[in-house]
Amino acid sequence: MSRKMVTIDGNQACTHVAYATSEVITIYPITPSSPMAAEADAKATAKQKNIWGSIPVISQMQSEGGVAGSLHGSLATGALCTTFTASQGLLLMLPNMYKLAGELTPTVFHVTARSLACQGLSIFGDHGDVMSARQTGWAQLCSQNVQEAQDMALISTQATLASRIPFLHFFDGFRTSHEIQKMEQLTNEDMLEMIDEKLITAHRERALTPDRPSMSGTAQNPDVYFTGRETVNKYYNAIPGIVQETMDKFAALTGRQYNLFDYYGAPDATDVVVIMGSGAETVAATIDHLVADGRKVGMVIVRLFRPFDMKAMVNALPSSVERLTVLDRCKEPGAPGDPLYLDVRAAIGEAAEANPTMFMPLVLAGRYGLGSAEFSPAMVKAVYDNMVSMAPKNHFCVGPNDDVTHTSLSYDKSYNIEGDDVYRAMFYGLGSDGTVGANKNTIKIIGTETDNSAQGYFVYDSKKSGSMTVSHLRFGENQVVAPYLINKASFVACHNFTFLNSYDMLANLEDGGTFLLTTTLDKDSVWNELPAKVQQQLIDKNAKFYIIDALKLGIAIGLGARINMIMQTAFFLISGILKKDEAIDAIKTAIKKTYGKKGDKIVNMNYDAVDGAVNNIVEVTLPDNITGHELPETVPAEAPEFVKQVTAKMIEGKGDQIKVSEMPADGRWPTATTQWEKRNIAVNVPEWSPETCIQCGKCSLVCPHGCIRIKVATEDALKTAGANDTFKTADANGKEFKGSKFTVQISSADCAGCTLCSTACPARKKDAEGNKTDESALKMIPNTDAVLKESQANWKTFMALPEMANASINPATVKGSSSSDPCSSSPVPVQAVARPRTSNWLLSCSVTG
Amino acid sequence: MSRKMVTIDGNQACTHVAYATSEVITIYPITPSSPMAAEADAKATAKQKNIWGSIPVISQMQSEGGVAGSLHGSLATGALCTTFTASQGLLLMLPNMYKLAGELTPTVFHVTARSLACQGLSIFGDHGDVMSARQTGWAQLCSQNVQEAQDMALISTQATLASRIPFLHFFDGFRTSHEIQKMEQLTNEDMLEMIDEKLITAHRERALTPDRPSMSGTAQNPDVYFTGRETVNKYYNAIPGIVQETMDKFAALTGRQYNLFDYYGAPDATDVVVIMGSGAETVAATIDHLVADGRKVGMVIVRLFRPFDMKAMVNALPSSVERLTVLDRCKEPGAPGDPLYLDVRAAIGEAAEANPTMFMPLVLAGRYGLGSAEFSPAMVKAVYDNMVSMAPKNHFCVGPNDDVTHTSLSYDKSYNIEGDDVYRAMFYGLGSDGTVGANKNTIKIIGTETDNSAQGYFVYDSKKSGSMTVSHLRFGENQVVAPYLINKASFVACHNFTFLNSYDMLANLEDGGTFLLTTTLDKDSVWNELPAKVQQQLIDKNAKFYIIDALKLGIAIGLGARINMIMQTAFFLISGILKKDEAIDAIKTAIKKTYGKKGDKIVNMNYDAVDGAVNNIVEVTLPDNITGHELPETVPAEAPEFVKQVTAKMIEGKGDQIKVSEMPADGRWPTATTQWEKRNIAVNVPEWSPETCIQCGKCSLVCPHGCIRIKVATEDALKTAGANDTFKTADANGKEFKGSKFTVQISSADCAGCTLCSTACPARKKDAEGNKTDESALKMIPNTDAVLKESQANWKTFMALPEMANASINPATVKGSSSSDPCSSSPVPVQAVARPRTSNWLLSCSVTG
Repeated sequence: MSRKMVTIDGNQACTHVAYATSEVITIYPITPSSPMAAEADAKATAKQKNIWGSIPVISQMQSEGGVAGSLHGSLATGALCTTFTASQGLLLMLPNMYKLAGELTPTVFHVTARSLACQGLSIFGDHGDVMSARQTGWAQLCSQNVQEAQDMALISTQATLASRIPFLHFFDGFRTSHEIQKMEQLTNEDMLEMIDEKLITAHRERALTPDRPSMSGTAQNPDVYFTGRETVNKYYNAIPGIVQETMDKFAALTGRQYNLFDYYGAPDATDVVVIMGSGAETVAATIDHLVADGRKVGMVIVRLFRPFDMKAMVNALPSSVERLTVLDRCKEPGAPGDPLYLDVRAAIGEAAEANPTMFMPLVLAGRYGLGSAEFSPAMVKAVYDNMVSMAPKNHFCVGPNDDVTHTSLSYDKSYNIEGDDVYRAMFYGLGSDGTVGANKNTIKIIGTETDNSAQGYFVYDSKKSGSMTVSHLRFGENQVVAPYLINKASFVACHNFTFLNSYDMLANLEDGGTFLLTTTLDKDSVWNELPAKVQQQLIDKNAKFYIIDALKLGIAIGLGARINMIMQTAFFLISGILKKDEAIDAIKTAIKKTYGKKGDKIVNMNYDAVDGAVNNIVEVTLPDNITGHELPETVPAEAPEFVKQVTAKMIEGKGDQIKVSEMPADGRWPTATTQWEKRNIAVNVPEWSPETCIQCGKCSLVCPHGCIRIKVATEDALKTAGANDTFKTADANGKEFKGSKFTVQISSADCAGCTLCSTACPARKKDAEGNKTDESALKMIPNTDAVLKESQANWKTFMALPEMANASINPATVKGSSSSDPCSSSPVPVQAVARPRTSNWLLSCSVTG
Repeated sequence: MSRKMVTIDGNQACTHVAYATSEVITIYPITPSSPMAAEADAKATAKQKNIWGSIPVISQMQSEGGVAGSLHGSLATGALCTTFTASQGLLLMLPNMYKLAGELTPTVFHVTARSLACQGLSIFGDHGDVMSARQTGWAQLCSQNVQEAQDMALISTQATLASRIPFLHFFDGFRTSHEIQKMEQLTNEDMLEMIDEKLITAHRERALTPDRPSMSGTAQNPDVYFTGRETVNKYYNAIPGIVQETMDKFAALTGRQYNLFDYYGAPDATDVVVIMGSGAETVAATIDHLVADGRKVGMVIVRLFRPFDMKAMVNALPSSVERLTVLDRCKEPGAPGDPLYLDVRAAIGEAAEANPTMFMPLVLAGRYGLGSAEFSPAMVKAVYDNMVSMAPKNHFCVGPNDDVTHTSLSYDKSYNIEGDDVYRAMFYGLGSDGTVGANKNTIKIIGTETDNSAQGYFVYDSKKSGSMTVSHLRFGENQVVAPYLINKASFVACHNFTFLNSYDMLANLEDGGTFLLTTTLDKDSVWNELPAKVQQQLIDKNAKFYIIDALKLGIAIGLGARINMIMQTAFFLISGILKKDEAIDAIKTAIKKTYGKKGDKIVNMNYDAVDGAVNNIVEVTLPDNITGHELPETVPAEAPEFVKQVTAKMIEGKGDQIKVSEMPADGRWPTATTQWEKRNIAVNVPEWSPETCIQCGKCSLVCPHGCIRIKVATEDALKTAGANDTFKTADANGKEFKGSKFTVQISSADCAGCTLCSTACPARKKDAEGNKTDESALKMIPNTDAVLKESQANWKTFMALPEMANASINPATVKGSSSSDPCSSSPVPVQAVARPRTSNWLLSCSVTG
C-alpha cells in the first residue's frame, strides 16, 4: 500500500501511530494533549483496529495519577499500552514513572510539552514538564515537527520494546501539536515492518500471571537496593544503539533519516547552537540565510535527550566549532544552568578530558520560547550575534525585555528571512465565528488538492469564545519550515470590522499585499469608516483592498452567521493560490466530502456560498486622502497606572512589549481591572422596561459580567449625576425608598449578550388587554452604535450616583415575588451565579440594590 | 536562658525548630519523616507553644498532595507554615511546589531524604527524592548531622522569609533522621533573635484578603508568561547572600559557623571530593586519617544546593586542586551524570572560561549510599585512590559489586579508621524485644549524665517485629563523627541465643573485646552449646565472654520478657563506661525519670532489675578446645539455585555481597521462597489434637504463614512417606475418604506463634465427663527443641504424601459444622485470611484438604 500525503496536526500525526500500535490506552485530558486522547477515543468508538486487528481499549481515569497507575497494571499483564499528557498532568505520573522504568517496562507516553504553572498558569508550550521527568529513568525522544510527531512515535514504540526502557516521546505543545502540516502518513504495513513481533512476545512472556508466578514491587533493604539499581546500567547503555538502529531501519523504509543528534549548517561552522524541538526548525531556516550571507553557523539538533549520549553529541559537532550556545526551552530557577546546557557542558568537559588536544569551545546558555513565547529568526540571529560579540552574554533569555537583571538579548524585530517562495496569509476572526475552521479547511484543500506544502497555525487567547483568533497560513512549492508566527503577510483578512479599532493588523502586511475586510458597508462608504491609521497603512503599503458583505450573503443563502465558506472562497479567489475554476472545483469537492452525509440541501447551500462569494467580492480603489477617525484609547485616561501600562498592552495584543520590571513578580495582579477592557462583543444587549420591572434585582445578581446593575436614588441625586431623558427610572418600591427612583442600567460595552438577565427576569410585560406576554422586563435588542453610546453615557451617570450602603432590597416587599426567600422559587440558573467573571462580580455585589 | 545539651535524633532536632517557628503544620506521615509529624502533633496536643506564644494548628491530610495544596492555601493567608515528608510523598507535592516558588511564598519543607521506589521500594535514605525537586525553583539546604538538622532548620526559616523563596531543608533519611546524637539545643530566645519579625509582618501584608484584594493563580498567555518567569531572577540572585548572612548571624549567636560551601582537609590538597549530606562526615573522618598519612586530600561540603552558587563552589576549592570527584547519593539512569556532578562540571567549566589561566582539574563522578547502603571510610579511601590511579574510573559506584558493567570501585573492607578514643558497642536483638529501646536509654544516659559525646544508630529490616535488630552505639570524650556502621566493636551483645546459628556477629568484635550473651544456660554448659565457629572466634579474638540469664531474672522480678533494664545494666557494668556506682546511680535516676509517673511499684521493679543484673552477670573463662556444632546451612541443599545464591545471603545479613549479575534487573523475584527461610521465632506453637478435631480445615485456611496444613492419605501412602508414631492422624470424615486418614501438620520453624489457628478452630475438647472445655483442637505449647525436631521430621513426611488434587472437603460433611457454607458462621477472622504472607499462601492453598 502506497503512502498518502495528509494535512493534519501534530496530535493527529502522533495518534495515527500511537493508536495503531496499542492495545490499552488510558487517558485523562489535559491541554494541549487532549486531542490525542479524544481522537483515540473516537477511533475506538468507530471500531478502528490497530495494526494487529484488535480494537484498543480506551479508558478515561479520574486523573493523570490514575492513568499512570492503571497503565502500570495493564503493562504488567503484558499489554501494549500508551497515553497522552502534558504539564502538571505529567507531574502526577512521576511516582509511577520511576517504577515503570525501574521494572524495565516497555511503553511510550506521548507528551505535548507544556509549561508548568508557576507565577501563573500557562496552557502553552515549553519543555518545563518533560524536563521535570528527566530524572525518572525514562528515555526521551523529541520530535520537532508534525512529520516527526508521527515518525518518532513509531521509532519510540519499537525502541521501547527492544530496550525495555519506557519512552517519553514529546513535541512542542501548540507549536507542533496544533500546527497543521502536509506530511507523509505511514501505512499499517510500515508499522508492522518496524515493530519486531518477537519483542512483543517477549513482553507477553514477562507478564505477571498465576501460571508463571513471579513477584514484583518488593521492598529492598540497604543490603541490596543499591545493587538492584546498578543492574539497569546495561539496559541504558544499549539504548542509543537501539534507537540509532531503529532510526536507520526507518530511514531504509521511508527515506527519512534521523540520528541521535543531527548537525545542520555550515560544515566549517565556528558558532553552533544546540537545541531540541520545534525551535530547531526556526534555527535551521535562519542558518540558511546566515550561511548565504557568509556566516559560519550551524546547529546540533537533539533528538534522543535521554539517555544523553555525550560522545554522539560531541561527534555531531564540526571540528571547526569555537563557540556553542545551548538553548533551553525551560527555566529552572536556582540551577547553575538549564538542563540541556548542563548536559552539553558535561559532554564538552568530558570530551576535553578524554582528548587534551581538543580545542574546548566556549559554551553559552540561553533560554527561549517559554509558554509558547515567540521564537523568531530575528531571535536566532541575536543568539548567533551574541556568540561573536565582544562580551557574550551567558545564561541569557531571548524574547522578554529583562530591564531588571539584564539577562535578555536584544534583537532586531524587523529581521525577516521569509522569501517569496511561500505565500503567507493571516486571518483575524472572532472566537467561534468559524474563521479557524474555515482556515483549517483551506489548509487541507491546498494540502490535498495541490502539490503545495502547507502549514496552518492558530493563535487564540484564553478567553476563547468571544475573543480574537489569528490564523497563520503558509503555502509553497518548497517545504514550509517556519514554526513561528507570520510577520510579513501577503494576505491579511479581517473578519470583524470592530477589530480595526483595537488591533494593528496591517503592521504585518507586506508591501503590495492584499487586505480583505468583511463589512456591511459598500465600497463607496467603507473608506471613511476606517481609522485614519488603517487608511495610512493601506496607502503606504500600496495594498490591494477588498471587501465582502459576508454576513448579509450568509443570511440570504440560509447559512446565517456561518460565513466560513464565503470567506474561504473569497480568499482563494483573491489570493490566486489556485486558478479560479480549480479553486471553485476544489472547494466544492471539499464541501461534498464534508457535508455529503448531511444531504443535498446543506451541500447546495454551501455551493451557493461559494458562488455567492465569487459575485460579491468588491475591490476598493484606495483614495489618497486620509479621512478616518483617530484610534480610540485602549483604556480610558482615568484607568489606574498599572492598567494603562500593563493591561492595556495585553488588550492591544502587544503583551510581549511589557518589560520584566512591569510584570508582577509573584503572579499577584490588581483586581477590578476587567472594567477597563470594553470589548463590545455582544450582538444583542438587554433593554430595560421600567413599566414591567418588579424591582427584584435578579438581573443584576445573575449577570456573569457585572454589566447590569441597579440603584435607588433620589431625584436630587439623579439631577446632580446628570441624568437626562434617556436615563430610565421607575418609582422605587418599598416604604424605605418612598419618593426615590429605581433604575436598572446596562453597560453594553461589557455585555456578552448571554441573555441570562432576560431569562432570569420573573416579570412579564402585559399587552394592551392587560394579559401577560412572553416578554420580560429585559428584552434583547441589537447592539447598535446608538445603543452603545447611550449606554455609555447613562452608565457614567449611574456610576456617579451615590452608593446607598445601608439600603437593601427586602425580598418580602418585592411586588409579584411569590416568596419571602428569593432563592426558594428562583428561576435564576445557579451555575451562572457560580461563575463570576473575576473581579467585576465583586464590584457588582458592592452596588446597593 | 542558657542552652541545653540534649541527646536526640535528627527528626527531633529538626522538629524542635520547625514546631517552634510555625503556626500551621499540615502533615501526612511517610517514613522516615513520620516521627517529625508525630512529634509536632504530640507537642500541639500537649499545648506546647511556638516562640510567639501560640499553639500551632496540626492537620493530617488525606495524602501528601493534600498537604501541599492546603499549605499553599494557608501560606496565601499569611500564616507561617511547614511540613515534613520524603520520597514519593515529596513527588506528590511537586505540582504545588512549582506554584509556591512561582508565587514567591516563604515556607520550609523538612525532608528526610529517601530513595524513590524503582525496581523495588526502599524506605531508606538517599537523595533520589530531593533531587527530583531540584527543578521546582525551591532553595535547598542540606544538613549533614543531627546538630545541623536543628541549625539549618532555623537558618532556612529565616532565609525563606528574607528571600521569599521556599526552602526545602533536607537531611539523610535514617542515617541522620534516626541517628541519636548529643547536641546543643537552641533556645526560644535564639530563635526569636534569628527570625526577623519585620519579615513576618511583610509576609502577613502579602496575604490574600478581601480587605486588600489582589488576584493570584491567573492564566498567562504566550505574550507575558515568559516575561513573568524572568521577574524572579533577582530573588534567586539574592539567596546565596541572604543565606550566608543568616549563617554568619547564626555563628555569632552560637559559635557554629556554616558557609554555602565548606572546605575540609589539607590546605594543599590535590584530590578533592565534593559531597552533600551525612556522607561528608565519613569523608571528613577519613580525610583526617589520610592527611595524617601524608595524603593531600580534601573535601568541599555542599550546604546550599539550590540556588547553586557556582563561584562560591569554585572559591571553596584549594588552588592546589588537580582532581575532583563529585559524589552523588542518587542515580538518574540515562543522564550524562548525576545531578551534583552536572552542577560542579558546569561550575568548573565556567570558571575555566572566566579565567583561562586557571588549571582545570579533572572532574570525576561517583555514586554512593543508595537506599542507605553503607558508605564507609574504606569506600572513601577507594574514592581518593581512584583519583590518583593510572586510569581513574568515571561515573563509578562504590558499594555494589558491579560485575556486569564494571562501574564499581573495589575497596579494602578491612580498612578501618576508628581509634581508641571512642567506645563502640553493638547489640543484636529480636524486633520488639526491647533491645533498641534499652539502647536509646543508654545513649541518653551517657549523653545526659556524662560529658561524653554519644551516638546511636539502629538497623532494622523490613520484617520489623520478629526479625533481627542491630544497635550501633558509640561514646567518647571527643565528638563522634561516624555516620556509618561499626565494624570494629569493643563490645558485642547477643540478646537471642538462636542468632548464633544464623549471624556472624563476632566478625565485628575487636581483639580483646567483650561478648555478652543472654542465655538460659549456665557458665559450665554454655560453651558446648556454642557453634564451633563462635568458639573459634572468641578464642582467636582473645575475647572477654559474659553471660546473663536475663529472661529468668525478668520473670522473677515480675518484668517478664522486658529484659531491657537488665541488659542495659549489664552493659554498663561490663563495659566500664561509667564507674559501677555512677552507672547504677545514673540508671536509677533515669528509671525514676522515665517511670516515676507510673508509681513506686514499677520504679522498684526496675530498680530490682538493675540490682539483679549486678548479681547475675557471669564471666565465662574461655576453654581452649573447640567442642561446638557446625553452623547449620542457611537454606537446605534442596533449595533452588537462586535461593542458595541470593536469598540465603540476605537471610545471613550478607546481602551486600550479592553481585549485580545475581540481582533481578527488573525487580522481579521468584515466588515461594520464604519456605526456605526457617526463622523459628515462635515462643509457643500449636499442637494438634486428632480426637478433638472436626476436620473443617479452618486452621489451615487462617494461617497467615502457611505453616499449618492438612491432607487426607491412605494408610499405604502414610507408610510409603515414612510416617512414624509421632505422626498423628485421625480417621478421615466423609464418604469419599472412607478408609483414609486425615492429618494436620505444623511447621514449627515457620510458625510465628500468632495463635490464629487455635482461635479459629471451632472444635472444643471434652473433659472426662464429656463436657466441652475451652481448649480447641489446636493448643499452644512451648516451642522446645524437641517440638521443633519432631515437627521438622513430620513436616517432611507430610510433604512426601501425595497431593489429592481432585478431592476436597465438602463442608456439608464436616462433623459439627452448623451450615453448608463454612463462611456463614465462621469464627475465622477475615482480615487474617486477607493477609497471606507472600507466596506460602498460594502453596497452602494448593495442598488438598
